[in-house]
Amino acid sequence: MGLNSLHALLVAELRDLYSAEKQILKALPKLIKAVTSEDLRAGLQDHLEETREQLARLEQIGSTLPAKLTGHTCEAMKGLVEEGAHLLEEESTPEVLDAAIIGACQRVEHYEIAGYGTARAFAQALGLKDVANTLQATLDEEGNANKALTKLSKKVNKAALQA
Amino acid sequence: MGLNSLHALLVAELRDLYSAEKQILKALPKLIKAVTSEDLRAGLQDHLEETREQLARLEQIGSTLPAKLTGHTCEAMKGLVEEGAHLLEEESTPEVLDAAIIGACQRVEHYEIAGYGTARAFAQALGLKDVANTLQATLDEEGNANKALTKLSKKVNKAALQA
Repeated sequence: MGLNSLHALLVAELRDLYSAEKQILKALPKLIKAVTSEDLRAGLQDHLEETREQLARLEQIGSTLPAKLTGHTCEAMKGLVEEGAHLLEEESTPEVLDAAIIGACQRVEHYEIAGYGTARAFAQALGLKDVANTLQATLDEEGNANKALTKLSKKVNKAALQA
Repeated sequence: MGLNSLHALLVAELRDLYSAEKQILKALPKLIKAVTSEDLRAGLQDHLEETREQLARLEQIGSTLPAKLTGHTCEAMKGLVEEGAHLLEEESTPEVLDAAIIGACQRVEHYEIAGYGTARAFAQALGLKDVANTLQATLDEEGNANKALTKLSKKVNKAALQA
């Protein structure tokens, strides 16, 4: 599509995030099903609901700009999701698998933090205040989801150590 | 290789990071060559040197544990590197390409922040203090590299806007 303006680059970033969220929405239920810790399952379930909301926000931005966000595949998220799927194929102890799943989910969160942070900076530079604010709302959620996983990991790692 | 202990999971994380660093070492020079901003080029060049050091740290951890870190491919980094390579194939304005390259590099930094953070937490839980400290040194560098890119992006995005 060409990267000849910051606006075009913002649209490219939004398309990438749209594909990333779509892939997460499909992959997360499989990870939730494989989890043993009740706290972790509840945390991931909450984040699945958030992900639906985040996707809706992107769709709203797409119709405001307007920009077509479909038709692109985020290759990085494809790799991240593959790595998560590989974990489920490994022979594993349930508590160790929980620790591994947190690691995979934090990689996903960090991808989104980087992506939304970049898109928000472009929107700010372009003077698109509403778009920037909407992206900031998701960015805050991703940051909080990541912190919640770090907190959960302490308990989960201890359980994995004793397993 | 099986995920039946937290130690096995730490080794799996280290193997993933080893593959990630190897891929970055190969991909970064191509991005550096494509950059227009002198500041950005200097920043990425510095990070290339850091990456060599970070790889050496992983090799040192591998020989201490001991654990074989070769033979695994980090699929997520493969996707991240592919996305960076696609940027260079796009028809683009130099200043806009610089902004896009920063976005790609911050995704890579965030992958490493998540990966090293996870590995350090496992090392801490396992009581492997020296390993945890070595991983923390890299984690600090990745955090600083990411902050430096955010700072650079303000100038680069402004140039992209005027291009």
